Amino acid sequence: MTPGDARRFAALPDSFPMWRGGALHGARVAFETWGALNAARDNAVLIFTGLSPSAHAASSPADPSEGWWEGMIGPGRAIDTDRFFVICVNSLGSFFGSTGPASIDPGTGKPYRLSFPDLSVEDIARGGYEVVRSLGIERLDTVMGTSMGGMTVLAYVAQFPGATRRLISISGTAAASPFAIALRSIQREAILLDPQWQNGNYSSDRPPATGMRIARMLGMMTYRSAAEWRQRFSRQPIAPELRRDEPFAPEFAIQGYLEAHAQKFVNAFDPSCYIYISRAMDRFDLAAHESALAKSELEGALVIGVESDMLFSIEEQRALAEALKAARIVTRFAPLNCIEGHDSFLIDLKSFGAQIGGFLA
Amino acid sequence: MTPGDARRFAALPDSFPMWRGGALHGARVAFETWGALNAARDNAVLIFTGLSPSAHAASSPADPSEGWWEGMIGPGRAIDTDRFFVICVNSLGSFFGSTGPASIDPGTGKPYRLSFPDLSVEDIARGGYEVVRSLGIERLDTVMGTSMGGMTVLAYVAQFPGATRRLISISGTAAASPFAIALRSIQREAILLDPQWQNGNYSSDRPPATGMRIARMLGMMTYRSAAEWRQRFSRQPIAPELRRDEPFAPEFAIQGYLEAHAQKFVNAFDPSCYIYISRAMDRFDLAAHESALAKSELEGALVIGVESDMLFSIEEQRALAEALKAARIVTRFAPLNCIEGHDSFLIDLKSFGAQIGGFLA
Repeated sequence: MTPGDARRFAALPDSFPMWRGGALHGARVAFETWGALNAARDNAVLIFTGLSPSAHAASSPADPSEGWWEGMIGPGRAIDTDRFFVICVNSLGSFFGSTGPASIDPGTGKPYRLSFPDLSVEDIARGGYEVVRSLGIERLDTVMGTSMGGMTVLAYVAQFPGATRRLISISGTAAASPFAIALRSIQREAILLDPQWQNGNYSSDRPPATGMRIARMLGMMTYRSAAEWRQRFSRQPIAPELRRDEPFAPEFAIQGYLEAHAQKFVNAFDPSCYIYISRAMDRFDLAAHESALAKSELEGALVIGVESDMLFSIEEQRALAEALKAARIVTRFAPLNCIEGHDSFLIDLKSFGAQIGGFLA
Repeated sequence: MTPGDARRFAALPDSFPMWRGGALHGARVAFETWGALNAARDNAVLIFTGLSPSAHAASSPADPSEGWWEGMIGPGRAIDTDRFFVICVNSLGSFFGSTGPASIDPGTGKPYRLSFPDLSVEDIARGGYEVVRSLGIERLDTVMGTSMGGMTVLAYVAQFPGATRRLISISGTAAASPFAIALRSIQREAILLDPQWQNGNYSSDRPPATGMRIARMLGMMTYRSAAEWRQRFSRQPIAPELRRDEPFAPEFAIQGYLEAHAQKFVNAFDPSCYIYISRAMDRFDLAAHESALAKSELEGALVIGVESDMLFSIEEQRALAEALKAARIVTRFAPLNCIEGHDSFLIDLKSFGAQIGGFLA
């Protein structure tokens, strides 16, 4: 617990069976909430995150630090806490309070690392479901998610028909494209081939930092868009204070940007958690759940995507919206023109907020 | 010399001054030719390659093995050897016969590696120019190049006004975008951070293979397009013979494809050559050559690009065509709709051949 920590924890059933086999014991999921649950207990909105964020989506009295979706959640905001009880979960398998490969295995007293069972997006969805049940909520108003969270909401309705009235998928997909799989494979390979990886037996003070650096730089390359970088960095030289006197040192501003993000990430995320979650994203396929959307009991859905997204393409968003409509769910499809690529939902809060707020209202 | 080697070599002037300082001694450039130089010596077409190909663009009696642009060059082909004398050079700094960082420094008797002087696209262009002079050709009919070669042709006309009548730029650019710089920085960083890199003092039988693997996989990701991979691989599982019994082993066909390309590349290219050429591409900027196009004495130009190219974007091709027109050069701009991304010029020979053949005719 850090000072100003707003996290709460839901204990998972012991044992907690994993979707592809194996089970967890004494596991938990971290979450934060904003707003108040009404008497009918029917105003809850559950948010699933992308690969790396924590449950701290927005500030609160208990934790005034800025959240990863700060401007989106609050009184009068698109996700209006005057009206909704908002829950954000840290994904099962992640690193910010929820049980994952970096957690202590109660059976051995040591971190799980590669002895953690196979992780699936379905398990992450079930982790969120257990949080909702622990709060005494029978049915959500809306389940929503960004990026990987946009897969998780589909795993949610596929596994728990009737557990939510509505769904919002933001820059997500029903199944990863080969391009996204390629990207994530290379990111994982950079970690797995780092000599400090040690088959997962790295010491915490000597992690596979090179692999993590490369994985993060690669991620940053696909989270934005070539057009945004052209506007923002063009061919500007790197800032003088970032110059290094070594062979093939960075020369352009874009290289300094990648470097800064890489540095931050190495100490902020655990490598085993990273590769478990990354592979779960590759493997998820809504088609594995027969007639999932038709059985979902959804009353409405919103699918938002961005034309400049190279990782979760607009065609994937369109196909998802069509699949929802084909399942006779009233669906709004919002293709946005933002230039910030996959990460647009973190940046262009105005465009995304208008869609989300309009749908929720 | 391997059996069936069709290479010839042009000695560079000794010393050969490099564009950003330093000089080479006893250097040479490898090249191959097809067709015959006419009596007027005015039917020569010079081809510059992308980052990794050799001068072996097409088969010939002396080397019947398939070239990297096999279907494009030959009697009656788009680059018609019944009519043109075709020269393809291995880039200075590369690994297939031309002097580069992997060559022996005559001053020390050891490979240059990081003691090789700074390499620029301008030097690669000058290497090709010396080949042309060694063949007794005053003026080319056409200088053409693909990918990096599309930068090299600009460095050629910028440095040697009047040395060619016409120019063809194929999926090239007048200056790398921040997206392309980002990609190449990460590729180089993967090599530079590989413990076997040893600051360039790797032994040839123990090269930085991990870094080279990652660099190549990353390259493959940006050489094609997400749409092509969707058609070709979708979410097919990896072939059974490529499965491995190890944690986080590849599971999808796209991963097998990347793996195969990575394996091949590690032993086919030298890491120091790779990082020298890669950085030269980042640094090249036609704007460094004042009024280069206006002074070029070009009579005509063709700029071909592909909508699905994420590395050398269609906007860059369009801007180049506009710059040529602004310099009062008769210019044809051909934006093609191929789905194979940057590498389309290697695959869709029909579309590219029609443009190239039509322009040359």
